[in-house]
Amino acid sequence: MLKRYLLAPGPTPVPPEVLLAMARPMFHHRAPEFDKVFAEVRDGLKWLFQTKNNVLVLAASGTGGMEGSVSNFLSPGDKALTINGGKFGERWTKLCKTFGAEVTEIKVEWGRAVDPQTVADALKKDPGIKAVYVQASETSTGVAHDVKALAEIVKPYGETILVVDAITALGVFDIKTDEWGIDVVITGSQKALMLPPGLAFVSVSDKAWQLAEKVKNTAFYFNFKKEHENQQKNQTAYTPAVSLIVGLQEVLKMMKAEGLEGVFGRQALLAKAMREGVQGAGLALFPKESPSDALTAISAPEGVDGQAIYKNLRVQYGMTAAGGQDHLKGKIFRVSHMGYMDRFDIIMAVAAIEMVLKGLGHPVKLGSGVAKAQEILMAK
Amino acid sequence: MLKRYLLAPGPTPVPPEVLLAMARPMFHHRAPEFDKVFAEVRDGLKWLFQTKNNVLVLAASGTGGMEGSVSNFLSPGDKALTINGGKFGERWTKLCKTFGAEVTEIKVEWGRAVDPQTVADALKKDPGIKAVYVQASETSTGVAHDVKALAEIVKPYGETILVVDAITALGVFDIKTDEWGIDVVITGSQKALMLPPGLAFVSVSDKAWQLAEKVKNTAFYFNFKKEHENQQKNQTAYTPAVSLIVGLQEVLKMMKAEGLEGVFGRQALLAKAMREGVQGAGLALFPKESPSDALTAISAPEGVDGQAIYKNLRVQYGMTAAGGQDHLKGKIFRVSHMGYMDRFDIIMAVAAIEMVLKGLGHPVKLGSGVAKAQEILMAK
Repeated sequence: MLKRYLLAPGPTPVPPEVLLAMARPMFHHRAPEFDKVFAEVRDGLKWLFQTKNNVLVLAASGTGGMEGSVSNFLSPGDKALTINGGKFGERWTKLCKTFGAEVTEIKVEWGRAVDPQTVADALKKDPGIKAVYVQASETSTGVAHDVKALAEIVKPYGETILVVDAITALGVFDIKTDEWGIDVVITGSQKALMLPPGLAFVSVSDKAWQLAEKVKNTAFYFNFKKEHENQQKNQTAYTPAVSLIVGLQEVLKMMKAEGLEGVFGRQALLAKAMREGVQGAGLALFPKESPSDALTAISAPEGVDGQAIYKNLRVQYGMTAAGGQDHLKGKIFRVSHMGYMDRFDIIMAVAAIEMVLKGLGHPVKLGSGVAKAQEILMAK
Repeated sequence: MLKRYLLAPGPTPVPPEVLLAMARPMFHHRAPEFDKVFAEVRDGLKWLFQTKNNVLVLAASGTGGMEGSVSNFLSPGDKALTINGGKFGERWTKLCKTFGAEVTEIKVEWGRAVDPQTVADALKKDPGIKAVYVQASETSTGVAHDVKALAEIVKPYGETILVVDAITALGVFDIKTDEWGIDVVITGSQKALMLPPGLAFVSVSDKAWQLAEKVKNTAFYFNFKKEHENQQKNQTAYTPAVSLIVGLQEVLKMMKAEGLEGVFGRQALLAKAMREGVQGAGLALFPKESPSDALTAISAPEGVDGQAIYKNLRVQYGMTAAGGQDHLKGKIFRVSHMGYMDRFDIIMAVAAIEMVLKGLGHPVKLGSGVAKAQEILMAK
């Protein structure tokens, strides 16, 4: 028997009570039963997104939400600014090009956060930019971009919106959608929301709706305006993923019981314990600055293959983490602490990493990282 | 206590063993565990679709599969032929226009099936048509179009594909994808596949892939070629809806145990019993020809509001059916017998319809329709 532990940056573990809620018999989405669930879920999402705006629910994974956040706000030929500091930043660029936008890309070294000043400069140089695209947390590098600072920069431009991919950020750390003035915030179900993959969520500000009014592009399945009209009546334009929405109702109850401060506090503590723990075991963090509280990207020590660490965690110890992507393959490995996670998930992860490294012949003092993590987790 | 019965044309009831399978703990989609499940599911889908072609699995509802079947096969300015005999036929027209196609639409009276000769004539007149779009079963009217005949007509045109929305058809009645030569067949999870909504499936023929090679359009999330490349390696381009795919594995096991002939035979028997049953109760079928075995559309009797029938079924008897859409609202109601359905679902439905009609003051002899249904169901 090999017991399994899921510490990948999505899908993340689904709490048992949510699994059971989703196992309730199916019901119809054009009936009062669904209306009631959906109304509650929509309220809960506003709370979670810290917004008065409608949060659209889409039957798709996160990329579907990203696609709609391009196709609904940019017409072919429109100017877009993308911030590319990793694999998901790159996706913004690809998406904008697919939909015919004229893209200015700010390339950020993988492992670093964008310097907000470069965005300020780009907008100053070209105030005709319609939308700025960024990640709150870049999953491929484990770095958080300062979306609060970016919102302040974009705000004065009356016809430019800020679109934030918060897929591995929302529900992990504080994102004050309305207070900071972020126009579009996207997340997915399988990260901090502790659900299986299959739902994308998008909050849209008035400024963004105004921009959408003028747009000509090929959004059909991801037609935000049509969804907005339907969802305000607790319906969806196309058949919704009913069982996941039932799970979401349960998840939102759990998150409300903990409170936003409670959730963010727990996630921050776990992230800190993970970072200090792996450093206590003699490892180095990959991010050179601004590590995301959602996941920790760890550099493989000199002479050790990062893919071997990732693979041995899974095969020897039943623990699914993640390797590096693209040019970081073999150079880093990543451990997530988003969502349904508590102190002993961190202890286990640090212990397993120590054991794998030792097994690979790397000199590590067993328990050194664990002790560091324990210290931090006790200080709560 | 009001016990609930789901007889809407999607979502349909999910078998308890499938609900439980989906409640298993989450696992990662970039790991051998998923590969194994996905490989099995892909094989099963080929069996169900009666094709040697790859069947793409998308995290979306059926409309997502329809959108991709337009955006991946038509460039702006390309010619498309759509068959519009109801709300979903209309969706083909809208989709084709959204993606810039030049659309010829064959309008079919709601309640009738397309005359294949009109399609033959249209193709003869304009052999430059790249794709013909049709429903195998038009859910809004309960009519089946003869896709076998259409496939014979389209086949000789070497650069024209036939795209069949089989969302309420596949797994209900026989669709021999390869033998008949249908290029693209689409279905969704929440119909005959007895799953919650959230997955779309699309089989693509070599002829269709050749067409796709030349296409320029804005497919990103629904980029079939990219999915094809990934899925042949048991991976997906974007995060898959893991829990639904686990449920699908279970569903395919159940369907294989019954066999295609067994499934189609049961569905045909149930459909016949429903049609004869409601006629035995003095009601008329809405389709003037070619009723679909997936669902029965029934005309509301003179002087009785179809919406009242639908509503009373739900409120008084806990039975969720469906009303009419668009100009058929109030004139018809629809009862589904797709998927996880057996003889007593039909008996219950006919009995409930009789009781609702009697309650609305319509003269109906209680048990008259039920007796007719019983007769047919015993003749098996």
